Amino acid sequence: MFRFIQFNAILLVILIGCSSAQDNEIRDLLLMQQTAWNAGDIESFMQGYLKSDSLRFVGSGGEVRGWHSTLERYQQSYPTREAMGTLSFELHEIRPLGQKHAMIFGSYTLQRQMERLTGLFTLIAMDTPNGWRIIHDHTSAVDLP
Amino acid sequence: MFRFIQFNAILLVILIGCSSAQDNEIRDLLLMQQTAWNAGDIESFMQGYLKSDSLRFVGSGGEVRGWHSTLERYQQSYPTREAMGTLSFELHEIRPLGQKHAMIFGSYTLQRQMERLTGLFTLIAMDTPNGWRIIHDHTSAVDLP
Repeated sequence: MFRFIQFNAILLVILIGCSSAQDNEIRDLLLMQQTAWNAGDIESFMQGYLKSDSLRFVGSGGEVRGWHSTLERYQQSYPTREAMGTLSFELHEIRPLGQKHAMIFGSYTLQRQMERLTGLFTLIAMDTPNGWRIIHDHTSAVDLP
Repeated sequence: MFRFIQFNAILLVILIGCSSAQDNEIRDLLLMQQTAWNAGDIESFMQGYLKSDSLRFVGSGGEVRGWHSTLERYQQSYPTREAMGTLSFELHEIRPLGQKHAMIFGSYTLQRQMERLTGLFTLIAMDTPNGWRIIHDHTSAVDLP
């Protein structure tokens, strides 16, 4: 009985450890994206997405499929450093979905010289051999307080 | 060797079987919602969502938490049969995420007497003892062709 409790305690510690390691890796991914964006570097920002034709980005303009098309969409929507403004993410929830996936829900603020854009995003991220990558991004503009 | 191949073949059949059974259950869930909506029955439509305070609905008005608040939001946004119009879903992808979750991506059309609303949705569904239930719904209005 004691052994069983001890084993479960160890298992729990391992699971909590894994869970927070996963959380940290995902937080680092989003932080990398935020930093790259604010350095005006869309190509580096895009490294957070899975480099695959299966990547899906859903925004106000509809659905975009594939990494290259998503890069082009960002480049067209944000052609200048001024248009890119200053991006900040706030993560509201990271929810593991099985061993290899997670849902990330959060809000963004894009501060430009004359305006402030806000919205919410739902991301699905996948644990790949190269680290966590976003495989699905559904972002919508919402007036946040 | 033959036994091994045979075993794998059986396993494959089981896995394909499970996968399509899961797909069918999720399709049935969305079909139930569509049917309930078009019968003017928001309460039945809401049975597709997990009856939990953790449920999250993300729409044009922002984030709503909890099953009851989501029900109220639907009742306020669609107070009459006319406002509810005729709903149709189109499922573009059902993607299993581990054993117990799936992502559903699709589009909706809400046909009213004088207008047609369209948009895209990303759902996360969970396999519960009562069947598949939506635990996260990110819906945004998009002009679809």
